[in-house]
Amino acid sequence: MAKTKYEHIQLEAYEANMQLPKSGLVLFTFGNVSAADRALSVFAIKPSGVPYDELTPGKMVIVDFDAKVVEGNLRPSSDTKTHAVLYKQWANIGGIAHTHSTYATSWAQAQRDIPIFGTTHADHNTVDIPCAPPMNDEMIQGDYEYETGYQIINCFKEKALSYEEVEMILVGNHAPFTWGKTAAKAVYNSAVLENIAQMAWLTESINCNAPRLKEALIKKHFERKHGSGSYYGQELI
Amino acid sequence: MAKTKYEHIQLEAYEANMQLPKSGLVLFTFGNVSAADRALSVFAIKPSGVPYDELTPGKMVIVDFDAKVVEGNLRPSSDTKTHAVLYKQWANIGGIAHTHSTYATSWAQAQRDIPIFGTTHADHNTVDIPCAPPMNDEMIQGDYEYETGYQIINCFKEKALSYEEVEMILVGNHAPFTWGKTAAKAVYNSAVLENIAQMAWLTESINCNAPRLKEALIKKHFERKHGSGSYYGQELI
Amino acid sequence: MAKTKYEHIQLEAYEANMQLPKSGLVLFTFGNVSAADRALSVFAIKPSGVPYDELTPGKMVIVDFDAKVVEGNLRPSSDTKTHAVLYKQWANIGGIAHTHSTYATSWAQAQRDIPIFGTTHADHNTVDIPCAPPMNDEMIQGDYEYETGYQIINCFKEKALSYEEVEMILVGNHAPFTWGKTAAKAVYNSAVLENIAQMAWLTESINCNAPRLKEALIKKHFERKHGSGSYYGQELI
Amino acid sequence: MAKTKYEHIQLEAYEANMQLPKSGLVLFTFGNVSAADRALSVFAIKPSGVPYDELTPGKMVIVDFDAKVVEGNLRPSSDTKTHAVLYKQWANIGGIAHTHSTYATSWAQAQRDIPIFGTTHADHNTVDIPCAPPMNDEMIQGDYEYETGYQIINCFKEKALSYEEVEMILVGNHAPFTWGKTAAKAVYNSAVLENIAQMAWLTESINCNAPRLKEALIKKHFERKHGSGSYYGQELI
Repeated sequence: MAKTKYEHIQLEAYEANMQLPKSGLVLFTFGNVSAADRALSVFAIKPSGVPYDELTPGKMVIVDFDAKVVEGNLRPSSDTKTHAVLYKQWANIGGIAHTHSTYATSWAQAQRDIPIFGTTHADHNTVDIPCAPPMNDEMIQGDYEYETGYQIINCFKEKALSYEEVEMILVGNHAPFTWGKTAAKAVYNSAVLENIAQMAWLTESINCNAPRLKEALIKKHFERKHGSGSYYGQELI
Repeated sequence: MAKTKYEHIQLEAYEANMQLPKSGLVLFTFGNVSAADRALSVFAIKPSGVPYDELTPGKMVIVDFDAKVVEGNLRPSSDTKTHAVLYKQWANIGGIAHTHSTYATSWAQAQRDIPIFGTTHADHNTVDIPCAPPMNDEMIQGDYEYETGYQIINCFKEKALSYEEVEMILVGNHAPFTWGKTAAKAVYNSAVLENIAQMAWLTESINCNAPRLKEALIKKHFERKHGSGSYYGQELI
Repeated sequence: MAKTKYEHIQLEAYEANMQLPKSGLVLFTFGNVSAADRALSVFAIKPSGVPYDELTPGKMVIVDFDAKVVEGNLRPSSDTKTHAVLYKQWANIGGIAHTHSTYATSWAQAQRDIPIFGTTHADHNTVDIPCAPPMNDEMIQGDYEYETGYQIINCFKEKALSYEEVEMILVGNHAPFTWGKTAAKAVYNSAVLENIAQMAWLTESINCNAPRLKEALIKKHFERKHGSGSYYGQELI
Repeated sequence: MAKTKYEHIQLEAYEANMQLPKSGLVLFTFGNVSAADRALSVFAIKPSGVPYDELTPGKMVIVDFDAKVVEGNLRPSSDTKTHAVLYKQWANIGGIAHTHSTYATSWAQAQRDIPIFGTTHADHNTVDIPCAPPMNDEMIQGDYEYETGYQIINCFKEKALSYEEVEMILVGNHAPFTWGKTAAKAVYNSAVLENIAQMAWLTESINCNAPRLKEALIKKHFERKHGSGSYYGQELI
């Protein structure tokens, strides 16, 4: 196949998609990841319904931020419009992941925010993981995946959350979406969310009156990883 | 071994059976899959009690829709009569799978339908997964596996369900049966059911008042995968 | 190493022990299996505290039914006396397995019999899996592992159970013991018990009023695997 | 790289760190292990945020018991000060492990000691696994990781526990720390703790009135592994 100007995001999307089954985050094809090129205003996304072991970088479909296919012979993921809306509205994200991972999806089905119970959560977020309410019937019967994107954005607006600080959400009755600077970071966030979701469920099961993490600890843990004086990880990384 | 006219369904049944341990759906030999040839009115099924790593396509037993062995030296699965009844009554299925997978079996033991809580479920079914009640004592003491087939069919009649739309059931106190156009699809449905069963249990554990999925979402998700205007997967698949 | 008259049971015990980590039934060295030669009145058992990946058939210790070491340089499992008592009292068992497998051990810690909820259980047993009560202090302070054997035997006597029909027990506050005609069968029973234990826990979690399996089904399922007119498995197996 | 006098603890720390992902105790980089040389008053510890599959013995950072880096180009684990405090205060430990393992962390988030329910627990400890309360705000805003070390030590003082007998603790809202004579033993203790934590959760779920293990059994099991007349394992091990 001739080299194209989209190969870098096809490769990025391919590699990030392949992390989903490796990390135990998907059954069959119940998930998808995209990688954007901000300069070109397009993203590469998994083709719909294609098994992971049949994926290749070249099969990633190139789509613009209005969800129009730019290049590729395969139909893109059925969730493509949701990705497009998020890329269009949120200027600083470079990758999006969607899974039906077991524990996060169960919280979405339970229609509850995931309470912040510990430092594992606080290392990544300072708030309860938001669960967007199910859409109203009009939105569902309309342009469903497009509206799913707006449901996510509206939830962040209502809760006054920053998409650069909180890189994950549950869509009520549906499943999680996560994002980040890169597709790899979006998948990383899916794995972190699944872990947080499992431990929050267990925490309530062990102590039905488990208190939320105290504010000082929330602040401390997030800052040691993300604040201006952060001291987690290596400078060069 | 000489080539026979049943080799294609033996191979189909063999490959589908081998997916069960790979997918974590069986312990030891607690499961079986069959593949039918509608033109020949027979199906190939796993021999009873033979470990999966000793299976070969040629060991699959050929049985007709009255459960009579047509070809093969081994005794067919003890659940063979249940398969035969379903093939005989339901003209459009080509494969059947039976497992004792952990979560689905636990719902069967709990004698509860699995509530439809999310879109993972709605992508495959528009209803709660039915749980057929345990048989009465007369049926159990009679031709048990034959009656199990009728228990399944009667449950679908009573609930006015279509076996072409709902390809899975729990048999109360026992375990799940799933089916489809092919043996591979039947096994796929077993894996989906197990996933749905686990998440429904978790959902109720996280929120004991979790509401069923709203009708508009049920309809939307099923139609995007299965309706006339479906847009999931590839045209050519 | 010179060939000895115990090699066959050393090999049998070795292979059965190696199944424990493969089946996910042990963490580190928290388990042991033995294999008996009834004619010689001895059994081969895992050496104490030796990691599974350092085991060899030759390291299996030969012990008589009074728990005296007959051959071997290593100290036998700390549970050896329990094995010896069972072999001495129950003439028809050829193998014993002891694990701290997660779900079965949790039922033992909860000090509850495992209710018979479904056909997976009934395929192997017609009764609730018994949980022997914790020993009295005198027995504990006395010859503890020896008394553990008697605690098991007394529990079977009190409940009027046959060790040939029910090949598994929970020792309250401790963990399961299983047995069978061979060491391999004992390990098989450990895996079955773990599966039954997990599903019984889930069943109660899904329906706190889940009813026990009805008598007709208990009888039917056990007989189809074990009765005189059994039709599970192959004649020749 | 030239041979240094720290290579032995770098290797020890490296090998112990690599056991964490193998044992399923960490997601990504959420854990760290250190190994001390008591004669040199230093320890080798995992560099911060470096993925396990990029680790090498030479990347282990050498730190003294005041948490000052002695050798190494990489920034040490963000939990380094906690390790340093424990080495300084507790003269007889040679290794420390910190993970966010699922079940132990959930108990920490639930802010509960793990009750001693069975002999698996008693084989390692005679007490409930302590959960140190969350720090007060002053401590959190101060030298946080240093104070975490003191929080652990103070909890042991208040509960009159010996760090040589109880080699594990939960830090409330955070996660477990374990230790031992060697780094390998510290990791072993992390795996044991995770197992105990999972089974204690299941035990309460199966029987909400499950009693603690009786004193005679606690004493018996601990002594058979650790007492002067211990008879678990081999003399030479």
